[in-house]
Amino acid sequence: MPDVITLITDFGMADEYIGVMKGVIVSIAPAVRIIDLSHNINRHAVQEAALVLGAAYHYFPMGTVHVAVVDPGVGSDRKIILLRAGGHLFIAPDNGLLTFMLADNTFEAAYEVANSDLFLKPTSNTFHGRDIMAPVAARLAVGLDVQAVGPAVDKAALFRLTLPPVTINRQLGTVTGAVIGVDRFGNLLTNIHVDDLGAVTGPAGPDQLIVTVREIVCGRLHNFYGAVAAGSPVALIGSRNYLEIGVNRGNAAKMLAAAPGDAVIVARVTGGAAG
Amino acid sequence: MPDVITLITDFGMADEYIGVMKGVIVSIAPAVRIIDLSHNINRHAVQEAALVLGAAYHYFPMGTVHVAVVDPGVGSDRKIILLRAGGHLFIAPDNGLLTFMLADNTFEAAYEVANSDLFLKPTSNTFHGRDIMAPVAARLAVGLDVQAVGPAVDKAALFRLTLPPVTINRQLGTVTGAVIGVDRFGNLLTNIHVDDLGAVTGPAGPDQLIVTVREIVCGRLHNFYGAVAAGSPVALIGSRNYLEIGVNRGNAAKMLAAAPGDAVIVARVTGGAAG
Amino acid sequence: MPDVITLITDFGMADEYIGVMKGVIVSIAPAVRIIDLSHNINRHAVQEAALVLGAAYHYFPMGTVHVAVVDPGVGSDRKIILLRAGGHLFIAPDNGLLTFMLADNTFEAAYEVANSDLFLKPTSNTFHGRDIMAPVAARLAVGLDVQAVGPAVDKAALFRLTLPPVTINRQLGTVTGAVIGVDRFGNLLTNIHVDDLGAVTGPAGPDQLIVTVREIVCGRLHNFYGAVAAGSPVALIGSRNYLEIGVNRGNAAKMLAAAPGDAVIVARVTGGAAG
Repeated sequence: MPDVITLITDFGMADEYIGVMKGVIVSIAPAVRIIDLSHNINRHAVQEAALVLGAAYHYFPMGTVHVAVVDPGVGSDRKIILLRAGGHLFIAPDNGLLTFMLADNTFEAAYEVANSDLFLKPTSNTFHGRDIMAPVAARLAVGLDVQAVGPAVDKAALFRLTLPPVTINRQLGTVTGAVIGVDRFGNLLTNIHVDDLGAVTGPAGPDQLIVTVREIVCGRLHNFYGAVAAGSPVALIGSRNYLEIGVNRGNAAKMLAAAPGDAVIVARVTGGAAG
Repeated sequence: MPDVITLITDFGMADEYIGVMKGVIVSIAPAVRIIDLSHNINRHAVQEAALVLGAAYHYFPMGTVHVAVVDPGVGSDRKIILLRAGGHLFIAPDNGLLTFMLADNTFEAAYEVANSDLFLKPTSNTFHGRDIMAPVAARLAVGLDVQAVGPAVDKAALFRLTLPPVTINRQLGTVTGAVIGVDRFGNLLTNIHVDDLGAVTGPAGPDQLIVTVREIVCGRLHNFYGAVAAGSPVALIGSRNYLEIGVNRGNAAKMLAAAPGDAVIVARVTGGAAG
Repeated sequence: MPDVITLITDFGMADEYIGVMKGVIVSIAPAVRIIDLSHNINRHAVQEAALVLGAAYHYFPMGTVHVAVVDPGVGSDRKIILLRAGGHLFIAPDNGLLTFMLADNTFEAAYEVANSDLFLKPTSNTFHGRDIMAPVAARLAVGLDVQAVGPAVDKAALFRLTLPPVTINRQLGTVTGAVIGVDRFGNLLTNIHVDDLGAVTGPAGPDQLIVTVREIVCGRLHNFYGAVAAGSPVALIGSRNYLEIGVNRGNAAKMLAAAPGDAVIVARVTGGAAG
């Protein structure tokens, strides 16, 4: 069974940067499987990449090495980190890309990628994805021990993004969060998890919840986009298990003029503790 | 020899959706080869994806599993179909994506993908590509019997797109069809097959045929784009074996203001049965 | 160890052309690894593709087959060439795509790809990437002898692009070159190699060199983008080992209104031979 390396970057697909990283990897690990998570992350959008990585990694086999290169600080003194969490390995600059893997209880160990014997030579100051992260990922995929990459790092020392809060008010029966992303279809991705909604769902079930974005009422929770008329907004639990707001056969971000940062409120229809 | 799965979707490459489907596949079928046909199909453009799939599948090895996810009805009661045709397998929503495989004589069998034992759990209402089509394709690639996916479905019950007609008039020496797509280069893809032209080609050969789009005369059939001056329109039999109209080193769709649905007429220069 | 084929084209990712080429390859060479270098080369931009290929190929294992399909002359009498250089194989139209592999001292042999027994049948006039280059690359990857593709071609007979000159004036301590590309980040890629700068670097080292683009002074050479304030221009030796000019967290092409062809001058601060 070949090992797997995933790649997520903000490099785009027009230049040779991704291909070159793969060339470096297969030169070291000829049988490894390489899967692209996304290379169209917006430039320097660390939070966007962190969200994608956090949503995607657990669909891959245990032992997969995930390489994330959104790296505005390349060449500065920011560290490169190898994180072992949840049975997966992650290699990324210490700039918040690993926030979601640090937020749950799956942490196992972290190391600074510092052993220059593992790097491509000469090692540039501008492309650590190619010269450091790709060769280290490849060596890990073919059996290098994680401790060989460099000294252990304390979990508390690792950089985490500050994310918008999710507030649950059981008495009012409300959950308040935010839009944190927009996908290709214009669907609004929020930071409200299906479990957050469970805390305010009455005995009548989740279809008694009303969703509001930017003070625009988007109606009750549904099960799929086509449950409302074409052109109407529809709130549902998306494929990431978080609340999403879409428009059936339309673009919610445009129609609701919504963007990351906008407030999202979910409220129980029949207020009160007995609701 | 590793088995092959191809993917065609309208998901774009910016989000993690494609990568996650691949993660699901390799978790089940570690040695399968995955090839992207296209992920930049326009949103919900079932006909566009059907055309690409119909043009592409036969270049892959027999036994390849082709997964098509352009699925505006995801979560509704539309079925997911496994089609066996021409020695290939196809998994797609029953919304017309399989039109071209149903139009020829290669039909072997069709099944409803209904056996939820084969699905990812929990199974979402919004991403059947990940939760149903990817795992079923992976299991088929590693040897699952097609009959295990669900009950057989009658060929006549499957949904087909209504395509613009191609009309051949042997007496007038004309073939009338339509533009059905535009490629990245602005080339106009038509639904007139090289064999349709054979029916009206006189003894002087195909270079006696004049091609007209939107009543604009594009000249005779040529063998390659560079056969005319730069900036001139050129009609030829494209790489799909269908009539195409391009502009040498230019963009035919823009220059001729042509789009899918526009009429295309091919006429023999020297009319009459003796032509 | 599976063999490797790389692909670089101007086909874009929306149509099925890349997927079909891969289908042809895996039908012949089921175990070969296929890596995309780029499919977003601008249409017919032979120089752009030549630069990418020249910068990327040496990161791949020896014996890799690199296929380049930017081919405005497809179907005309331009030849298709198999080049063996530096332990790698290259298949491309004879239109300048191989310029950089011909410019250095790694030439081993060249052949005209002419043996139609190796082609896909029927062989179209419009898609030699699929019908000629893909099957020949696949057969080479599984062991076909290079001499089987067709007659040897003299190195001097192969077409090369005329590139802007790089002029070194040791007395004045200046190197004059040009912008030859722009990457996704708006970084200006130049044709001035790090070794060219060595010829004018004084004993104080490369940080005594001042870089000018379009007569706009971009300051001294730095080691990484973040070495200057956000929004400021920064000159450095990029990951290709050539001089690049960027803007920290900004877009140099837009900010400096610079484009391929613009003059780039590097000058030693303390002029004169003793500098």
